[in-house]
Amino acid sequence: MDLELKDPILIEGLPGVGHVGKLVAEHLIEELEAELMIEVYSPHLPPQVIVLDDGTVKQVRNEIYVHRGENRDLLLLVGDYQSATNEGHYELAGAFLDLCEEFGVKRIYTLGGYGTGQFVDKPQVLGAANSHDLVEEMKSYGVVFQENEPGGGIVGVSGLLVGLSRLRDIDAVCLMGTTSGYLVDPKSAQEVLRVLSKALEIEVDMQALEERAREMERIVGKLREMEKAQMPFETSGEEDLRYIG
Amino acid sequence: MDLELKDPILIEGLPGVGHVGKLVAEHLIEELEAELMIEVYSPHLPPQVIVLDDGTVKQVRNEIYVHRGENRDLLLLVGDYQSATNEGHYELAGAFLDLCEEFGVKRIYTLGGYGTGQFVDKPQVLGAANSHDLVEEMKSYGVVFQENEPGGGIVGVSGLLVGLSRLRDIDAVCLMGTTSGYLVDPKSAQEVLRVLSKALEIEVDMQALEERAREMERIVGKLREMEKAQMPFETSGEEDLRYIG
Amino acid sequence: MDLELKDPILIEGLPGVGHVGKLVAEHLIEELEAELMIEVYSPHLPPQVIVLDDGTVKQVRNEIYVHRGENRDLLLLVGDYQSATNEGHYELAGAFLDLCEEFGVKRIYTLGGYGTGQFVDKPQVLGAANSHDLVEEMKSYGVVFQENEPGGGIVGVSGLLVGLSRLRDIDAVCLMGTTSGYLVDPKSAQEVLRVLSKALEIEVDMQALEERAREMERIVGKLREMEKAQMPFETSGEEDLRYIG
Amino acid sequence: MDLELKDPILIEGLPGVGHVGKLVAEHLIEELEAELMIEVYSPHLPPQVIVLDDGTVKQVRNEIYVHRGENRDLLLLVGDYQSATNEGHYELAGAFLDLCEEFGVKRIYTLGGYGTGQFVDKPQVLGAANSHDLVEEMKSYGVVFQENEPGGGIVGVSGLLVGLSRLRDIDAVCLMGTTSGYLVDPKSAQEVLRVLSKALEIEVDMQALEERAREMERIVGKLREMEKAQMPFETSGEEDLRYIG
Repeated sequence: MDLELKDPILIEGLPGVGHVGKLVAEHLIEELEAELMIEVYSPHLPPQVIVLDDGTVKQVRNEIYVHRGENRDLLLLVGDYQSATNEGHYELAGAFLDLCEEFGVKRIYTLGGYGTGQFVDKPQVLGAANSHDLVEEMKSYGVVFQENEPGGGIVGVSGLLVGLSRLRDIDAVCLMGTTSGYLVDPKSAQEVLRVLSKALEIEVDMQALEERAREMERIVGKLREMEKAQMPFETSGEEDLRYIG
Repeated sequence: MDLELKDPILIEGLPGVGHVGKLVAEHLIEELEAELMIEVYSPHLPPQVIVLDDGTVKQVRNEIYVHRGENRDLLLLVGDYQSATNEGHYELAGAFLDLCEEFGVKRIYTLGGYGTGQFVDKPQVLGAANSHDLVEEMKSYGVVFQENEPGGGIVGVSGLLVGLSRLRDIDAVCLMGTTSGYLVDPKSAQEVLRVLSKALEIEVDMQALEERAREMERIVGKLREMEKAQMPFETSGEEDLRYIG
Repeated sequence: MDLELKDPILIEGLPGVGHVGKLVAEHLIEELEAELMIEVYSPHLPPQVIVLDDGTVKQVRNEIYVHRGENRDLLLLVGDYQSATNEGHYELAGAFLDLCEEFGVKRIYTLGGYGTGQFVDKPQVLGAANSHDLVEEMKSYGVVFQENEPGGGIVGVSGLLVGLSRLRDIDAVCLMGTTSGYLVDPKSAQEVLRVLSKALEIEVDMQALEERAREMERIVGKLREMEKAQMPFETSGEEDLRYIG
Repeated sequence: MDLELKDPILIEGLPGVGHVGKLVAEHLIEELEAELMIEVYSPHLPPQVIVLDDGTVKQVRNEIYVHRGENRDLLLLVGDYQSATNEGHYELAGAFLDLCEEFGVKRIYTLGGYGTGQFVDKPQVLGAANSHDLVEEMKSYGVVFQENEPGGGIVGVSGLLVGLSRLRDIDAVCLMGTTSGYLVDPKSAQEVLRVLSKALEIEVDMQALEERAREMERIVGKLREMEKAQMPFETSGEEDLRYIG
C-alpha cells in the first residue's frame, strides 16, 4: 500500500469485557470522522454475516480506520468479533503488527475493560505496558498500575498486541477501564477516553458517551433496586445483561 | 473443467435449521432432473461414511448438480453435512466461490430456515442480500426484510456465500423460511420454493413437497394435542424431533 | 520403500466400539506371527506416551504389521489410538491409502464393533462395502446387510478407509460385530474373525480369543445378576466398564 | 546459533501436576544462576500476556536457560504454560528436540508430578525411560519403576520428549514426584531434585524449596484438620487449591 502516514499511532478497540474498548474506539471514529482504510477478513473470525437494518449483509470482519490529525495520524482498529480460536488471535495480532511496521507505527494503545464482578461507581483506568518508561508516562495521565492486577493477565488481541510488539520495537500499552463485566459500560469507556485524550493530546467531545452512560445508570439503578428487593440474578441471566445498552 | 454453462445461477441448500434449504434444493434436483456434476470431499466434513439401504457406503460429501435450462443453467449445491469446523466453513465457501467464478455465476441463492422456537402456521420467507438493488428485487417476489431479523446474523455456508460473494462481484441473497426449528419443515420449504420459482421464472411441480408437508402437519397436530394435554417436551426430546419427517 | 508384496490385503483393527476390531487384528498378528513393518507417528494422535511394564515408554502410534502368506500377503493396521481430531482422521486415512497404492493393495477389510446398547447373546457381523459385488460376496460368508444399519453411518478410520478407497479403485468392506458397547467384547471379535477367515481363506486358531470370551462371559454374567438385583448402573460407570477385560 | 555447549543435558520443567517439575527447574535456575538463552513464542501457547508487578507485561512463552558447569552444561526448559492444543504439544516438542540435536544434547530429563488423589506423606519419584539401560541406571538413584504406573501414560511435553527422543537417538527419562494433585507441592519437588542431583552429580542448596515445603505443610495441616472436622471440600474448591503456594 502506498499510503503515507504521519507519525501514526494505532488504537485497538475490539469487542471485550463491557465492550469498553469498542465503545471508546467507535466513539473516536465518529467524533474524529475517521475513514475506513482496511477491511480484514479471516477464517479465524466466526463463519457468519451480520444482517443490517436495510436487509443487506455485512461479512464479519475487523476494520482499520484512519484519522489524519494535525501533528500525527491515528489508526483505529475495530470490528465485530475477535478471533474464535487461540491460534487465530496470534495470526490476527501478527497481521496487525505487520501493518504497524509497514505504516511506521511507533506506539499502540489497546483498550479494554477489566471485570471486577460488581458494579463500579467510580471506574479507574488500569494499565499494563511493554516498557518501564511507558509505565511512568502513563502514570502521569492518571493510569493506575496495581500489583497483581489484572491477575489473570490480559487475554486476546489487547494482550498480544502489547506482548508481541516488544519484539518489533513498538511501544504499547493496554488501558483497561474497571467495570462490572455484566453490562456494556459507557461510563467506564468515558474514563478510558479521558486518559487516552490526555495521552494523545487531543480534545474529544464526550456528549454521546455521556448520554449512553446516563442511560445505563438508569438501567443499573433499576437492577440494583431489584437486587435489594432480593430478586437475585440467575447466572444465565448475566450473560444476557452483558449486551444490554 | 471445460464445461460451458449458460448464464448460470448457484442455489445452495445444505443441511440447516428445519432442513428447509435442503428440502428445496433436493426437490429441485428431482423435479428438474438435474445431473450430478461435482463431488466435493473435505477434511472439514465429519470423518464418516453413510451406509445406504443396499449395503454400500457413501463418503460424506457436498455435491453440485447442474440443470440445463432454456434461458440459463442452474447449479444446485447440496450435501450430507456442512463443515464441522469454523475455518472449514470459510475454506468450503471459498472453494464454492472459486467454482462460481470459474463457471461465470453472477447470482447466488442460499436457502435456509429461520428458527422461531414455536410452531409456525403461515411460514414467511425472510431475506438478506448483498446489495440494495437485490433487496428491492426480492421484495417484489414477496420476500420479507425485517429490521433485526435474523438477529444473530446468518451462520455457516448460507451466510458466508452471501457475505463473501460481495468481494467477487457476485450478487447473492439468502432466503430463509420461518420454521419452529424443532422439525424438518416441508411447509416452510414450499414457501421458499414459491419465492424462488418466481425469482428464477421457472415452474416447479410442488406435489411431493405438499405431500410431505401434509404428513408433517399430522405429526405436528399430534404433538400439539400432546402439548395441550400438558405433556411437556423434554429439552432433549426436541433434538430428536428435529429429524422426524 | 522397496518392499515387494504379493497381492496384499489390508486389515484395519484400530481401537473402537468394544475394541472388537482391535481384538481381531491383534489376535491375527499373534497367531500369524506377523512382523512390524511401519510405525506411524502423527500430531493428530494424543500427545502421550504409554509406560510399559518394564518402565520403558512407547510413543503413542499406529503400526502396520506384515504377514507373508502362501498365496498373498496380509498387512495388519493396529495402534493405541485413532486420531484425536476430525481432520486428523482424514489425514491418517489418506496416508494409509497412499501406502495401499504404493504396495498394490486391492482390497481392504476394516473391522469394528456396532454398539447396540444391550448385552448381545449371539453377535452378528454387519457389513458395509464400497461396491455391490462386494456386498454380494460378503453375504456368502454370512455377513448381514440390514437396511438402516448402522443408522449413524460409520465414523472414524474404519468408515473413511471404506468411503475414500472408492476414489482409488480399491475394494473395501467394513465388518462390524454387534456388541453392547459397554465392554471389551472378545465374543463379538470371534464372530468377526470367523467371517474374515472365510473371506481370506485362512485358518486361524481361536483359542486365545475363546478364553478371553469365556472370561468376559463370567464378568457379564455377574453384571447381569447385579442388574437383576436392581442395582442399576450409573451412567458414568458404564464408561469405565467399557475398558474391563 | 553458534553456541558451543559442553556435553549438554536438557532438563524440562514446564507447568504440570502439582507444579513439581516447574518448582525443580526454577529452583535449579536460581541456585545455579543459569542464564536465559532462548525465548520460545508459539501460537499454540494461550493468547495472553502476564502483567508483572511493575506494570510491564511478559508475553506468554517458554524459555531455555543455560548453566555452564565444570564437566558439562545444563539446558533448563521452563515456561508459563504448555501448549493449549494437542498438535501444539507435538510441534513444540519437535522444536525442542531440534534444538537438542543442534546443541548435541545426548540426554533429557523431563520432570513432573504424578497425582495420586490423596495427600502424600513421603513422596516417591516414579520413572519412565526410553531405554532399558536408563531404567536400570535410574533405579540406582532411587527412582521407582512400578508396573501399571502411571496407568494413563504421560501426557504433554514431558511425555513427548521421552517418547519422540528415541527416534533421534537421545536418551530420555521422565521423573515424577508423587503428589496429591491438589496443591503446588515443593516437598515432592525436593524428592525429585534429590534424585536429579545424584544423576547429574551436582550439589544444590535446597533451603528455598525446604522453606516453601514447610509453608505448604502448614497449609496442608490446616486443610486436613478442616477435613477431619467434616467440612468436605467442594469439587470446585480443589481447582483453586491447586494454585495455592
